[in-house]
Amino acid sequence: MPDPAPRRGRRPAGEDTRALIVDAACAEFAAKGYDRASIRGIARTAGVDPSLVHHYFDGKTGLFAAAMALPVDPHVVAEGILEQPVARRGQALVRAFLGTWETPEARPRMEALLRSAAGQADMAELLRGFLLREVFRPLVGGMGEAEADRRAGLVASQMIGLAFTRYVVPVPGVADRSTEELVADIAPTIQRYLEL
Amino acid sequence: MPDPAPRRGRRPAGEDTRALIVDAACAEFAAKGYDRASIRGIARTAGVDPSLVHHYFDGKTGLFAAAMALPVDPHVVAEGILEQPVARRGQALVRAFLGTWETPEARPRMEALLRSAAGQADMAELLRGFLLREVFRPLVGGMGEAEADRRAGLVASQMIGLAFTRYVVPVPGVADRSTEELVADIAPTIQRYLEL
Repeated sequence: MPDPAPRRGRRPAGEDTRALIVDAACAEFAAKGYDRASIRGIARTAGVDPSLVHHYFDGKTGLFAAAMALPVDPHVVAEGILEQPVARRGQALVRAFLGTWETPEARPRMEALLRSAAGQADMAELLRGFLLREVFRPLVGGMGEAEADRRAGLVASQMIGLAFTRYVVPVPGVADRSTEELVADIAPTIQRYLEL
Repeated sequence: MPDPAPRRGRRPAGEDTRALIVDAACAEFAAKGYDRASIRGIARTAGVDPSLVHHYFDGKTGLFAAAMALPVDPHVVAEGILEQPVARRGQALVRAFLGTWETPEARPRMEALLRSAAGQADMAELLRGFLLREVFRPLVGGMGEAEADRRAGLVASQMIGLAFTRYVVPVPGVADRSTEELVADIAPTIQRYLEL
């Protein structure tokens, strides 16, 4: 059995193409925001056919996750939570959120993302657009827009504050406790907001 | 009755002294953090007698509020909340917090503070030290340290997330609602954390 091809020097064509698409996605998301960026426009910027984008990435949410170097696609996580019964979604959300970010590789990325959202208005706008459309609004379900905004906004306020006090400005009582302790304390808050 | 003295040119001696003390406090808090900075040390840096610091400022918390250009001394606000019956403290905290920051003058200062806490580790450490010691720990009262940290940390996580989604990265459903609507939605969360 031959050794795998050495990885030094030029990358294989597939990786070049993938990297080209990620670069184009970064530029397009930054320029247009999440809602107005499109796979078609990103393919055009990268100089590839849109079908190639779909070959490498699981839709716009997967492409966004790759462009932001997220450890998982949050939209996929949100879909997993929606499979839970309504009464368990608060718990599932807090557990999935913390679980995703607790690996040694993911944690510095979370810190960097939150810091850049706090410091750069366009980055904040981009993350907000993505999180509301692909994560928080799907989670709160299909009522009227004002009601959905209210629930999604409240959930976002607690989850962002949790991330901030655990990863960015570590606060005792949040940063030094286990995932399951935080799930027990914070899940009832999220559950209440989801059912307001 | 004579006109008040014109304000152009040299400031009166009192204001010079006050400004000198504020500058010294900024340097001292930045260098040592909140807990280790002292009025005596700040007076020494400013080259004035400690009694002069007490003449211009209401203790270390008042000096910190002046150094950070806060619209009010949060410690004084916390004392007002502690005068409420326990069952109303969640409500009082959310209302006081939002009320303080909703004026057109205070709001940009809040944004700047949160952004700099997100971007600069020493600023984050300074604010955390102050908020925990002078605001959140007094509010949760006198139980054991681990229990107090747990309550104070959870309260901080929701309040910081509220500030973030209302002032820094405005999220619909939080940024566009009235103070009293947010008090109604978020006070039960704070109340629950205070009584955990």
